[in-house]
Amino acid sequence: MSIARFSFNQATAQGWPLPDVVAGCVAAGVPGIGLWREPVAEYGLARSAKLVRDAGLAVTSLCRGGFFCADDWWAENLRAIEEAAALGAPELVLVSGGLPPGSRDIDGARRRVADAIGELAPHAEAAGVRLAIEPLHPMFAADRCVIATLGQALDIAERFDPTVVGVVVDAYHVWWDDTVYEQIARAGEWIAAFQVCDWVTPLPEGVLLGRALPGDGCIELRRLREAVDAAGYAGPIEVEVFSAEVWARPGAQVLDAAIAGYLRHVV
Amino acid sequence: MSIARFSFNQATAQGWPLPDVVAGCVAAGVPGIGLWREPVAEYGLARSAKLVRDAGLAVTSLCRGGFFCADDWWAENLRAIEEAAALGAPELVLVSGGLPPGSRDIDGARRRVADAIGELAPHAEAAGVRLAIEPLHPMFAADRCVIATLGQALDIAERFDPTVVGVVVDAYHVWWDDTVYEQIARAGEWIAAFQVCDWVTPLPEGVLLGRALPGDGCIELRRLREAVDAAGYAGPIEVEVFSAEVWARPGAQVLDAAIAGYLRHVV
Repeated sequence: MSIARFSFNQATAQGWPLPDVVAGCVAAGVPGIGLWREPVAEYGLARSAKLVRDAGLAVTSLCRGGFFCADDWWAENLRAIEEAAALGAPELVLVSGGLPPGSRDIDGARRRVADAIGELAPHAEAAGVRLAIEPLHPMFAADRCVIATLGQALDIAERFDPTVVGVVVDAYHVWWDDTVYEQIARAGEWIAAFQVCDWVTPLPEGVLLGRALPGDGCIELRRLREAVDAAGYAGPIEVEVFSAEVWARPGAQVLDAAIAGYLRHVV
Repeated sequence: MSIARFSFNQATAQGWPLPDVVAGCVAAGVPGIGLWREPVAEYGLARSAKLVRDAGLAVTSLCRGGFFCADDWWAENLRAIEEAAALGAPELVLVSGGLPPGSRDIDGARRRVADAIGELAPHAEAAGVRLAIEPLHPMFAADRCVIATLGQALDIAERFDPTVVGVVVDAYHVWWDDTVYEQIARAGEWIAAFQVCDWVTPLPEGVLLGRALPGDGCIELRRLREAVDAAGYAGPIEVEVFSAEVWARPGAQVLDAAIAGYLRHVV
């Protein structure tokens, strides 16, 4: 068991400054890091790129593009693609957005996602960045992501070359689905990223920050990891946890706990 | 537009005493009522049965059986079947239960649900009560119901005669599913009940009480109603809302609002 495929998504230690995250990863022998646009912008794009490159860390993904019902979706997503390229991130994670305010037209919103990805794909391809469609748990369907299952994400991704558009398999979002293993097998080379954290209840208000470190909940993380491997995925495995409780801990302690949970419950 | 198919699920006006609910329904010309075991037990089973019968109200369903991982599931479910029969409820709604504490074996829990229903079915049939498997929204998969989609509920129900085991189509639980219309068409005569309320965000802590009255959220209720009708369902349509905000209102006002939302957004 090793951390050769481990990647630390920086959102797991919200508020840990980027230079400290990078130093912490280097000190722990972690090979990869998942970045978010907001903290990268705060530290400076070129400066962030240099920081992680000089540290010898692989940027495994950039979060996030998407939100295709926003007025500025086109400019924002082009910018996100450029940022991913500048950071050397091979994957831009897409959270597709929910329903427009007051709308009940979920089919329309879903068509819009597929159309937007079709329009963005040539730009992503030119930049050498893969668009990674992330299905979010159905509890986010109204306000964050109308793409609610892996099967649905694949219905879109399969229209493209898998080097240009793929899918994210995030254990937290897909574990409940009785067709998930079938869909992971179907996904094959469209699997652009694999993310892990754990499911615990009760969910907090707003449900966003209810995740737990790997091993602290009820998801069969090793089984899911074995399934993505069996489907041909050999890429990084990102630990990504949104949790008020985890965020209250010192960053270095969170990284240690993420590695420990990963070694014990994922690989 | 009429309320000929309208049924008021008593959980929509939590705390409204049963005699008042019944009187309110009669005064409003409501033909049906959905009951829950706990308030029925509180008022007395035989007394409740007489109350609704004398009022000329149809009991459209009894909530709920299920929770098949509980130690006393067998005795509890037999009792629930008897109570449904005593009340003249043609359907016993089954909320199948989540994972046993500490378990990560969701496949095992799902097999257990199918086995339990198989064991209960002859008893339900003998009592003239249909077991109605309710898929709950996937956000409840861990702690309330491992049956998370209509497709999955049908995979179990279809092993039985549709007069013995059916499924509940509850708009709140299934609206996000991109296969829901296909599954409703598949469900056909297995549709035992149709329930409506609406989806609003943000979800409250614990997520149980986050529902809204029909029309106050983003669900295409009329489209779903038309789909269950097209699948051959001609039974009652229950309004069932769990909401701290709605529960804080006087029961009669809640019933009026439920009827208004039903007429405007469902039929």
